[in-house]
Amino acid sequence: MHSTYAREKISMNEEILQKLDTLEQHIHHYNEGIDIGVHPFDIADLLIEIREVDNDLYTASLNKLPSTLLAEVLVELPKSFQEELYTNYGPKKLAKLTESLDTDDAAVLIQHIEEVDEEKADAIMSNLSDEDRDTIEELISYEDHEAGSYMQTEVFEAHLDETIGASILRLKKMKANREIDNVHHVFVVSNKRKFVGMIPLEDLILHGPKELYRDVIEEGKITISVDPHEEIKNVIETVANYDLSVIAVVNQRGILMGRITADDIYDIIEEGATEQIYNLAGVNDTAEQEESIWKIGRSRGLWLGLNLLTAIAASLVIGLFDTTLQSLVALAILMPIVASMGGNAGTQTLTVTVRQMALGDIEADEAKKTIYKEVFISLMNGVVYAVTMGVIAYMWFQMPMLGIVIGMAMIVNLFSAGFFGAVIPLTLKKFGVDPAIGSTVLLTTVTDVVGFFSFLGLATIILL
Amino acid sequence: MHSTYAREKISMNEEILQKLDTLEQHIHHYNEGIDIGVHPFDIADLLIEIREVDNDLYTASLNKLPSTLLAEVLVELPKSFQEELYTNYGPKKLAKLTESLDTDDAAVLIQHIEEVDEEKADAIMSNLSDEDRDTIEELISYEDHEAGSYMQTEVFEAHLDETIGASILRLKKMKANREIDNVHHVFVVSNKRKFVGMIPLEDLILHGPKELYRDVIEEGKITISVDPHEEIKNVIETVANYDLSVIAVVNQRGILMGRITADDIYDIIEEGATEQIYNLAGVNDTAEQEESIWKIGRSRGLWLGLNLLTAIAASLVIGLFDTTLQSLVALAILMPIVASMGGNAGTQTLTVTVRQMALGDIEADEAKKTIYKEVFISLMNGVVYAVTMGVIAYMWFQMPMLGIVIGMAMIVNLFSAGFFGAVIPLTLKKFGVDPAIGSTVLLTTVTDVVGFFSFLGLATIILL
Repeated sequence: MHSTYAREKISMNEEILQKLDTLEQHIHHYNEGIDIGVHPFDIADLLIEIREVDNDLYTASLNKLPSTLLAEVLVELPKSFQEELYTNYGPKKLAKLTESLDTDDAAVLIQHIEEVDEEKADAIMSNLSDEDRDTIEELISYEDHEAGSYMQTEVFEAHLDETIGASILRLKKMKANREIDNVHHVFVVSNKRKFVGMIPLEDLILHGPKELYRDVIEEGKITISVDPHEEIKNVIETVANYDLSVIAVVNQRGILMGRITADDIYDIIEEGATEQIYNLAGVNDTAEQEESIWKIGRSRGLWLGLNLLTAIAASLVIGLFDTTLQSLVALAILMPIVASMGGNAGTQTLTVTVRQMALGDIEADEAKKTIYKEVFISLMNGVVYAVTMGVIAYMWFQMPMLGIVIGMAMIVNLFSAGFFGAVIPLTLKKFGVDPAIGSTVLLTTVTDVVGFFSFLGLATIILL
Repeated sequence: MHSTYAREKISMNEEILQKLDTLEQHIHHYNEGIDIGVHPFDIADLLIEIREVDNDLYTASLNKLPSTLLAEVLVELPKSFQEELYTNYGPKKLAKLTESLDTDDAAVLIQHIEEVDEEKADAIMSNLSDEDRDTIEELISYEDHEAGSYMQTEVFEAHLDETIGASILRLKKMKANREIDNVHHVFVVSNKRKFVGMIPLEDLILHGPKELYRDVIEEGKITISVDPHEEIKNVIETVANYDLSVIAVVNQRGILMGRITADDIYDIIEEGATEQIYNLAGVNDTAEQEESIWKIGRSRGLWLGLNLLTAIAASLVIGLFDTTLQSLVALAILMPIVASMGGNAGTQTLTVTVRQMALGDIEADEAKKTIYKEVFISLMNGVVYAVTMGVIAYMWFQMPMLGIVIGMAMIVNLFSAGFFGAVIPLTLKKFGVDPAIGSTVLLTTVTDVVGFFSFLGLATIILL
């Protein structure tokens, strides 16, 4: 055992030495301005691996990174690592890092620090240049669900009366100063930065350097843009519909404010899906990102409290039939089946309806069609399993009428599961409430109450 | 009433005439080669609106579109509209449409037709050029979850020994022939199309036309690529990590096969999220896209059948305690509360675990940490609501010991909800099973069985 361990330890050291070596090379290349296609993500990955072996080596390695590179690597590190650095670094160092970042990442950084330590965030802001401070203040003023909070203000723009050649010269300088990345389009503006349209670089490359933007703008320009206050969900829909890899953000006066790029759009789509999945399960996506396990627990607990209320409501319904239950214990044994089948069928309907609404597959005028479809499917399965369960109950308890009662109750409950599974989210949306939030708890209340009431009620009428 | 109706009808006609007019203009511009930034999506939108008013006008409008434009519009139409056209058009017309499409869209079209009418798909394939047929056959040979099935073979590539100027001349020609779109990168290859790296156009634009790719390739090249058989989920992760708007697909021999572009990546992320949301609710995402409501119902029914089995298992557990239930009807009234709270807490844990695994937030070595966290949260809420429910049960039925029994049962069940909610998906993933599929049904079986067993078992010991 011991020798294996020792060998492992040596090979681990060799591995880490190799990683440190690779890191040194990356830093060297970066300092010399040699771009060999290493992404900050790779460096962050190296650092994470180094940290797993030795925390001091990790800190020492971080300190070796020039601050512009450190800034880029920082945003690729896990959130907990980032927060550690926000605590360890002083406001001046953090201000320097902020200035090296793209404006959207800088705004996120400041927001993170604000959450942990508001004073420090203020101190960093006062260390920034006026221009950077203004930009960041504007970006963090947008709400999370607004397009503006995802935009970066770095764009490659050109005036209508500029020549293509002159703009390319400017781009060369910006690239040399590492001021801009991911330039796939020129954003053409008229006076006062009024947005005219964007031209893909692939179209630009086809024109001569002496041509004016004014003369080429009509060909292949993309005039689609979004308002900074637009719901980010709508932005995603626009971007996906028009197959864009970037979209211009333009304010109400027509002024170009910035752009939202493909990498942000990936994140937004993932975040939107996470929000939906979590909300359907009674989990708050923002609360789940808290560091404190207590806060996560409290947020989930609120939801469970709501569920407790609905479970008690269902129990009150059962309590109405206590004499029925007393005279036939088989009813107590079978009643969870009716509720469970209704709950499951309803969840299927609810989930499909919520998701298809989110993807824009169900339009406002298709509500009726959706309800018909869902009721039909739920009822079809209701009949199949009503018969199945009726036969099982009959054979189990040797009571034919009990089979009929549970069968009828299941048909009633699966009908209402299909109906309410579609109606609840459609109605919530109509009233401007996010259909993913609260739908589930409303639905299970219905399927529990209807399930218990129909089963025990029918039993009272038919069996007693 | 009548006059209002007539006025509505007239205004509707005016609106539709305007739409037809707009459409005519788009077609005119297209035929003249004037690109005014109208996206096929806009034309599809117009056609959908026209169809809502008059089906014949819709068909007539479709027939006016030149076939290259029709191809682009076709893929933007709703799936049901597309399938109608596959039925109405002959193999020759469909072959012509196929040839105008990007290869990835063409492969999807052929696959759609194959699903409906295999003979027609074969007839179309035999009408294609050998080259197009080979490409499409290769693309449809990939499985849905493989990178290859999302790639398009149209790339702008250049040889190491080509000058930048010569490659741009080629691009001009390709663009003029509408052979290629969304060119944000040059894919540089050596002999036999061996992939060397891709260069963003923005870097290319900084070099002179006489420079050889060989001499500029070291700067800013991106060597990241994926194998066509790679899991599409991993591709998404790579693309998101490296903030790419396009990724090269390169086979095992290093040959450039094609590329996957940002618009496909949006779709893949959305589809992946839909799959996860649906699977968690016991819904199959592929089956939901079926036209036949019977097939959708059958697929959901299978899942409900599985749920019926687990519900019966839970009922068998209840049946073990029939004498206990008979002697105290309060137990029958309260027992669904224990099961419901366990089910809800477990679903919270399960959903968060499944999603965080999918997003790569839970690494393999963090399984223990996840389980601890989830058990802690679930137990914390378990204690809070055990006390609450204990007091309620005591007051409701005036039995202090009943309060203690339900409280203890809830703590046991919420503990197991947190534990199994985390362990089930982690274990499924370890064995290579998609943790979203089947997790929910396994979990509710556990929370139902443990809930009923602990509550009725404790009641038998303590209360009788």
